[in-house]
Amino acid sequence: MAYQSRVSDAVIRRLPVYYRHLVELEHNGVERISSRELGARMNTTASQIRQDINCFGGFGQQGYGYHVASLRQHMASILGIDRVYKAVIVGAGNIGRAVAGYTGFERDGFNIVGIFDTDPKAVGTACGKLTVQPAAELDAFLKKAKVDVGVIAVPLDAAQSVADQLVRGGVRALWNFAPMDIQHPDSVVSTHVHLSDSLHILTYKMNEEALFKQIDERQKMEK
Amino acid sequence: MAYQSRVSDAVIRRLPVYYRHLVELEHNGVERISSRELGARMNTTASQIRQDINCFGGFGQQGYGYHVASLRQHMASILGIDRVYKAVIVGAGNIGRAVAGYTGFERDGFNIVGIFDTDPKAVGTACGKLTVQPAAELDAFLKKAKVDVGVIAVPLDAAQSVADQLVRGGVRALWNFAPMDIQHPDSVVSTHVHLSDSLHILTYKMNEEALFKQIDERQKMEK
Repeated sequence: MAYQSRVSDAVIRRLPVYYRHLVELEHNGVERISSRELGARMNTTASQIRQDINCFGGFGQQGYGYHVASLRQHMASILGIDRVYKAVIVGAGNIGRAVAGYTGFERDGFNIVGIFDTDPKAVGTACGKLTVQPAAELDAFLKKAKVDVGVIAVPLDAAQSVADQLVRGGVRALWNFAPMDIQHPDSVVSTHVHLSDSLHILTYKMNEEALFKQIDERQKMEK
Repeated sequence: MAYQSRVSDAVIRRLPVYYRHLVELEHNGVERISSRELGARMNTTASQIRQDINCFGGFGQQGYGYHVASLRQHMASILGIDRVYKAVIVGAGNIGRAVAGYTGFERDGFNIVGIFDTDPKAVGTACGKLTVQPAAELDAFLKKAKVDVGVIAVPLDAAQSVADQLVRGGVRALWNFAPMDIQHPDSVVSTHVHLSDSLHILTYKMNEEALFKQIDERQKMEK
């Protein structure tokens, strides 16, 4: 049976945000922070913060606030970024190369061990410290190297078959950048990066004030 | 004074997700959907769905469910993606090119009118239908073309000055891919794409089962 999460999606989505704020606080030399102050930074309440952290067995002393460095470490361990993952990228287009070149992933234990493409023009080219390998060699590579994460950075029509191939090759997780939902067994986890979501939030924000003026006027008319 | 949103961040974050599901439902030929069914698809409750939609003046008839195509259109109008935006991309590296090449943005009215870079090797190269222009010409370009959105796809240390330049040039919105929070006046809106958040959620999911086994055992020991 598939593992059922004990934590809501909303809590899980906040975890990386906690982590980012704690990294920044630690970087700025802040030693302790109250749940109220952390909540204010994150646009939420102190009680939400305490509830979220208590989902994972609790942390901190009542009245003293959280010790920033320890909570940052605790959060890294909850997020599982205090260990090392081997990843391969399938697709050496712009997205694949952007992921390969993104500084910071390596600090989080994300260790890219191979990048693959079907395009003969891409194969053999450099990508950071790696050389793009032919997609035909992916199966053999996965058989030899114990790879944890497969990054799907191929076009829409190839995404599902690449996902299947990665799963057959034994990866435990799929990081999907293709604009479609991929299917996979329950034993594998996945996240889907929807670049358009952030664009839609941006356009929403650009129009929100005008939108509510319209809504208010319509409601006045209807009265 | 800055405009204060009347809707919580959590609701705003769900809007693009509604939109994606509605596009898919419409594509699959589904005509009507109840808030319960839509909730099940989105991993939330019927009452949450109704509440969210009611934030924007309400929609649909009690007992008949939502008409998918109309709700999709209504949601597009709430998100502001039923109109056209002019955008420039600053930075013609992998991220900049990935954004320029992402199919689907144009369908949402996101019209890229220019891409700029400081690197003489990048300037003059093709990027889809565009040619990369020298960053030195950005100011003049912004003065002539009425640009709505500036995409920040430059390295960390250039991000803030590029943001300032775009704001001076009159953009209303910043779409930031640099891994840092940028400062801007309240009259401008922004969203920040944190690629690492989705990676952290992936590693969280990979470890969640083991994490809760540990927490349970610790709590047993403490009793």
